[in-house]
Amino acid sequence: MLEIEIKIPLTKQQISIVLNELRQLSNITDEINYKPLCTFLGEKTELDYYYQHPCRNFAQTDEALRIRDKKVAGSSESFELTYKGAKIDSITKTRREISVKIDSLENIQALLSSLGFFLAGQVIKNRKSWKINKEGITVSIDEVKSLGTYLELEIVDVQSKYEVSAEKLFLWLRKLLKCEELPPMERRSYLELLLKRSEVSSK
Amino acid sequence: MLEIEIKIPLTKQQISIVLNELRQLSNITDEINYKPLCTFLGEKTELDYYYQHPCRNFAQTDEALRIRDKKVAGSSESFELTYKGAKIDSITKTRREISVKIDSLENIQALLSSLGFFLAGQVIKNRKSWKINKEGITVSIDEVKSLGTYLELEIVDVQSKYEVSAEKLFLWLRKLLKCEELPPMERRSYLELLLKRSEVSSK
Repeated sequence: MLEIEIKIPLTKQQISIVLNELRQLSNITDEINYKPLCTFLGEKTELDYYYQHPCRNFAQTDEALRIRDKKVAGSSESFELTYKGAKIDSITKTRREISVKIDSLENIQALLSSLGFFLAGQVIKNRKSWKINKEGITVSIDEVKSLGTYLELEIVDVQSKYEVSAEKLFLWLRKLLKCEELPPMERRSYLELLLKRSEVSSK
Repeated sequence: MLEIEIKIPLTKQQISIVLNELRQLSNITDEINYKPLCTFLGEKTELDYYYQHPCRNFAQTDEALRIRDKKVAGSSESFELTYKGAKIDSITKTRREISVKIDSLENIQALLSSLGFFLAGQVIKNRKSWKINKEGITVSIDEVKSLGTYLELEIVDVQSKYEVSAEKLFLWLRKLLKCEELPPMERRSYLELLLKRSEVSSK
């Protein structure tokens, strides 16, 4: 499955613009199917544990292995193990993703550790998500601990019409930010940004 | 979690003796809690996929990584990913085991393969299981495809009273086989036995 994704950091002013735009879209009804153009999906805290491979350097191969602990109102709702392949282009964050749901955080951590995988870092974020219904785009506003606020737009593409999906994301990014020009994308993962930050601050 | 386990191959005559003994135990009621001494747990087909580590030879380290697809009446009931540590003694098959339940066979196979794990072999067996209620022992009769029939006795020991549990298993093995002397144990896994067998037959 291909996850086509773009991400940008948001200023305080941009957060207001995007939230306002999403609110307006939620109040407009699609004339064809009578659904709102945009639906709020919910708010959750995501605790992400990133692992390093025992004999392959993921920082070099641009891969990732992640356990996600999704918490809603403080309680774990689900655990997920995800492999992310290397990015496939030079602008978006599009990757191949494979996920499975897991029943125990403690056991999958012990299992990975027994296989020689080791913790590379942890990302904690609060995520609010919306769906642009007609387009199948998920919009997320992430408040990432120790990093700041980011906007993420994503399409999960099962049929691999990658270019069409990427164009849609660019269009909607401009629409949500109410700007003509495409802002510079952040292609690094939150983990990379956090590791970079701790590297700079330890110098 | 420690899985204390012993295993022996069964002749046709021994299969009858064990089945008869289990039947008799099922008809006796415990005078203290009014439960039968033994309960039939059910019958299922287990398809086990064993994986090799990308940079560690499990055949040498005596570890294993397995995906189990449990089928009841032909339909998959659950998928499980299990890591097994090296055996901890020279008589039983006692190992440390870590398991997680998984929601997709296809995805965990693709995920492991992306991480460099590769299929070492497959074991297919029909398993009938009983519980010796008072002792917490699981008795299984396994008909293993291309191998034969085996009897397995197992205690999952969370408190690690390993020696006590192993003694219980030896006692019950003699009881079920109606013999005084302990028969020789099979310490090799079904996978090892199958690989050995295909090695011999290809010579």
